[in-house]
Amino acid sequence: MALKLRERHFADYVFGVDFNEKHLEDAKKIGIIDEISSLENAVKNSELIIIAIPVDATREVLPIVLNWVNDHQTVMDVGSTKSGIVEAVKNHPQRKRFVPFHPMWGTENSGPKSATALSFEGKAAVICNPNDSAENALKLAKEVAKNLDLHLLYMSAEDHDIHTAYISHISHITSYALANTVLEKEREEDTIFQLASTGFSSTVRLAKSHPEMWVPIFKQNKENVLDVLNEHISQLRKFKSALEKENFDLLEELIRNANRIRGILK
Amino acid sequence: MALKLRERHFADYVFGVDFNEKHLEDAKKIGIIDEISSLENAVKNSELIIIAIPVDATREVLPIVLNWVNDHQTVMDVGSTKSGIVEAVKNHPQRKRFVPFHPMWGTENSGPKSATALSFEGKAAVICNPNDSAENALKLAKEVAKNLDLHLLYMSAEDHDIHTAYISHISHITSYALANTVLEKEREEDTIFQLASTGFSSTVRLAKSHPEMWVPIFKQNKENVLDVLNEHISQLRKFKSALEKENFDLLEELIRNANRIRGILK
Repeated sequence: MALKLRERHFADYVFGVDFNEKHLEDAKKIGIIDEISSLENAVKNSELIIIAIPVDATREVLPIVLNWVNDHQTVMDVGSTKSGIVEAVKNHPQRKRFVPFHPMWGTENSGPKSATALSFEGKAAVICNPNDSAENALKLAKEVAKNLDLHLLYMSAEDHDIHTAYISHISHITSYALANTVLEKEREEDTIFQLASTGFSSTVRLAKSHPEMWVPIFKQNKENVLDVLNEHISQLRKFKSALEKENFDLLEELIRNANRIRGILK
Repeated sequence: MALKLRERHFADYVFGVDFNEKHLEDAKKIGIIDEISSLENAVKNSELIIIAIPVDATREVLPIVLNWVNDHQTVMDVGSTKSGIVEAVKNHPQRKRFVPFHPMWGTENSGPKSATALSFEGKAAVICNPNDSAENALKLAKEVAKNLDLHLLYMSAEDHDIHTAYISHISHITSYALANTVLEKEREEDTIFQLASTGFSSTVRLAKSHPEMWVPIFKQNKENVLDVLNEHISQLRKFKSALEKENFDLLEELIRNANRIRGILK
């Protein structure tokens, strides 16, 4: 985000705050940030604060950040769950300075070296519970989205967490489980590497994503993720049963139904 | 394959045979084939015959094609299962003219308009049971692979079918089941379309693949696919149990294990 907001001259000075000093140095070297800073110094000297850390850490850090901001400053997060984060600051006197924000794009890679200014082009971003944010904070968040070439959707934090369970979180569990399946059954790792088709690489790509980011997401969205996971296991059982019973008409029907996704995803 | 083999001047005249007349006309218009032909005419006038049709149809067509070929002609298939196909011609007097071939690349799209000459670059192809093919047939198949920029692996048809169950077939079932999960639970198709992240598009891409191709593959590789599917469901249940019991250490361990795929897939 910083890379592109600088490129667009929307951000003219960027402080970087992180526990990981190597990441800070890399970020400065690459030109993502102008200055390595403490959290307090960065917050007190910025018009816009973007919190981009695991969602459990956001719940801890966000109230501290809000303690330090005035009515001309805006705080956004980028987390993949929202109910828990919104809940953590619902009674905070500066709640209205916060805009819960979720740009729907990411890769399986992390760290400043994975950053690209092309990241968000044409993707969606969600703003949750817009009525709980101040008008000037919302206005700034919209400008951020515009400068990142994101189109905006608005919904409640609860709806957001249901939709992301379907659209994002279950894909990660599926991908992790698929990787574990292959690693468990296919002992010849060399064969995997040599044979791996583009199809396999595509479905298993998300399995490279780190637990530091994803365990907190599953934790905070546990109920929705379990709902979808149960449905997913029952859908897989239908394929299993069709195969076991050699009911190839049912198998074809299951596949034709899945093909409908073609009309929905361009 | 025809597009690239023509581009490389490896194939100088290509006959096209298909039930679908629209596809034949398109293929001719695009420049994939030179002439629309009957099967018999095409086989009798070609040095190399490539059978690229669903694997159940290959079992029917391959013996007929072998009836017509002499010792200067070579027949290859491109099917994603091999034991059933090899079995279908094991006692055929011209078995040695056949090279069981599987280039490990494809997309979720079909028909001549989806063809691209860049298709196979850097990917793997498997030749099965090479000792059952004539030397000059194998030699031609190797030249084909070279001209398609495929690197070759050799294995038995049985081993091939075990590996493809892990590396390709289970990915398709996972992707179909994931599409059905989302289509079942997420009634607001508009929301899927607007929110769909790149992660979701990536894991669900294969769910666009047609049943005409995939039902016969699952049918012919039933036992291996069921083995892997059972393992996959049990891996998903581990995620479910870790979440239900809020055992986040186990969840992290499952994810860390899946992350090992990063070292195997570049």
